[in-house]
Amino acid sequence: MVKKILEGRNLIPAQMGEAFAPTNIALCKYWGKRDEELNLPVTSSLSISLGSLGTHTQVSVASKRDVIVLNGDKVKEHSPFARRLRTFLDLFRPEPKLFFEVRTQNSIPTAAGLASSASGFAALVLALNELFAWKLSSKDLSILARLGSGSACRSVFSGFVEWKEGGLADGMDSYAIPLHEVWRDLRIGILTVSSEEKQISSRTAMQRTVKTSPLYASWPEKVASDLDRIKDGIRKKDFDSLGSTAESNALAMHATMMAAWPPVLYWLPESVGVLQKVWRFRDEGMLIYFTMDAGPNVKILYLSQDSELVKRNFSGVKIVAPFGEEQEKEQEYE
Amino acid sequence: MVKKILEGRNLIPAQMGEAFAPTNIALCKYWGKRDEELNLPVTSSLSISLGSLGTHTQVSVASKRDVIVLNGDKVKEHSPFARRLRTFLDLFRPEPKLFFEVRTQNSIPTAAGLASSASGFAALVLALNELFAWKLSSKDLSILARLGSGSACRSVFSGFVEWKEGGLADGMDSYAIPLHEVWRDLRIGILTVSSEEKQISSRTAMQRTVKTSPLYASWPEKVASDLDRIKDGIRKKDFDSLGSTAESNALAMHATMMAAWPPVLYWLPESVGVLQKVWRFRDEGMLIYFTMDAGPNVKILYLSQDSELVKRNFSGVKIVAPFGEEQEKEQEYE
Repeated sequence: MVKKILEGRNLIPAQMGEAFAPTNIALCKYWGKRDEELNLPVTSSLSISLGSLGTHTQVSVASKRDVIVLNGDKVKEHSPFARRLRTFLDLFRPEPKLFFEVRTQNSIPTAAGLASSASGFAALVLALNELFAWKLSSKDLSILARLGSGSACRSVFSGFVEWKEGGLADGMDSYAIPLHEVWRDLRIGILTVSSEEKQISSRTAMQRTVKTSPLYASWPEKVASDLDRIKDGIRKKDFDSLGSTAESNALAMHATMMAAWPPVLYWLPESVGVLQKVWRFRDEGMLIYFTMDAGPNVKILYLSQDSELVKRNFSGVKIVAPFGEEQEKEQEYE
Repeated sequence: MVKKILEGRNLIPAQMGEAFAPTNIALCKYWGKRDEELNLPVTSSLSISLGSLGTHTQVSVASKRDVIVLNGDKVKEHSPFARRLRTFLDLFRPEPKLFFEVRTQNSIPTAAGLASSASGFAALVLALNELFAWKLSSKDLSILARLGSGSACRSVFSGFVEWKEGGLADGMDSYAIPLHEVWRDLRIGILTVSSEEKQISSRTAMQRTVKTSPLYASWPEKVASDLDRIKDGIRKKDFDSLGSTAESNALAMHATMMAAWPPVLYWLPESVGVLQKVWRFRDEGMLIYFTMDAGPNVKILYLSQDSELVKRNFSGVKIVAPFGEEQEKEQEYE
């Protein structure tokens, strides 16, 4: 597949390639692969990119071996992270002896369920595209990022992004497309319950769920219906519909993994505390929902009108305005 | 159905009827009704009765109105509890003007997910059977108890009990039967995280799950396979198989309700803390599993050999030996 995409493209690296990619949070989750090697998903999914939260990466050519620098620290050659990155870089070496220096900077905690691998692989592909001046289409960039980490294919874009599951065995029709809808008032509040490395990787948890969870059989149909509702909610700016569907989708994903064996539960006691709090606020009339990924952290969804309320009641919340805060500031001057 | 069962039976009450029924904990859960009125379940289920933990009830005839005394306190006439009990008693009045005095004593916190309604309705039916000297078969007693609360049909017996779902519309083949297997070493540790009345009744939670949870479609098949494994585990005294299947079944039940809308989550932060602790001990080699009902409390399952370890590590645990502790004590004298 990589060969097909890069056929006839330039092989001579420039001095440096540099790119940023945002992390993304799925509102309709990607959970389960139909192809482990190519990261082909069982279902489509839909995400929102987190603006300036993500990964900034510089790639250049190194002399004797790959050098990987993460957040300013050189990564040990035999660490799982370095191995995974090198295997990915293998796909792109014009000749086996060409090595890379990858300097990457995350503005989010690594491996805390905040999908740093999504922005990481997307930024790397974008930087390689610049280094070699491939001038690939965004579709091809999305496919290449997907090979590093499934959800990375969505991090090639900002805003709302849909990853079409596709049907081809080689994955050439499984890539992300941006929705081009803007929702300035939308806010995401990140509540970091734990930034420790998680004990079970998403990859393992997915595999186990698909293999052993009797509830997974109902997941694809759930996703199909949620996807329609979320896209409809975005089109109509119906926050209640968007939020409730995203929350329900996240809970159903966690439900499928809880029913796996051995059970997979990413929740910590503090996670449940936050969920109960969100429900309490909603009972009191506030428009607030949550989503959770394969980790203990909770992401709340709300509209800018409630930002003060959120700041006051959820201490330590990191607020993200995925489409910027311009309009809000303008309103202040009116 | 009540008419059919009581046809030709004595209508003259004696001075008092008195009975005890144990509460029970399902190892393979009852979750979802095919008939709301008759408490007919979607699937069969299997439980263990908790020895001397349960409800003791005395019934006699009252003069002007029903009188209900719960744990020594007279229950207010218009409370939901009193209404529910009166509606149930209506099924058994030989004439509309015959009233009952029901004095009932629970050795377990009411409505904290410890199924006091199961032992409550079972004890009441057993007491009525004595009051009127009906001399009903245990099958008929189980059917009558079921009309009060589904899981009450299992509380008519001690030990392991299977509730056969049945298929008839009138429910005459939906009742519990005891398994007659004895497992002296089996222990259940009750960890009461909260004894507050729960906000969503099991009845409501079940209805909502059946109606709105996309994952419920996979539940009946899960139960069918778990039921076989649990019965097999009991027959072979294979604790690992019994425990793992019971835990997986409980998690799958909670998973179906989490995916309902609005979501149903009985777990408190402390509940998750206990689950994580059980998993940690298991990772370290201990034979320990858990189950949870429609509430925040956790019931751990283990063998008597680990009683000291459990007492030391789970503060406040209430240990139940469903088949008595005789053998253990004998061993101490050997």
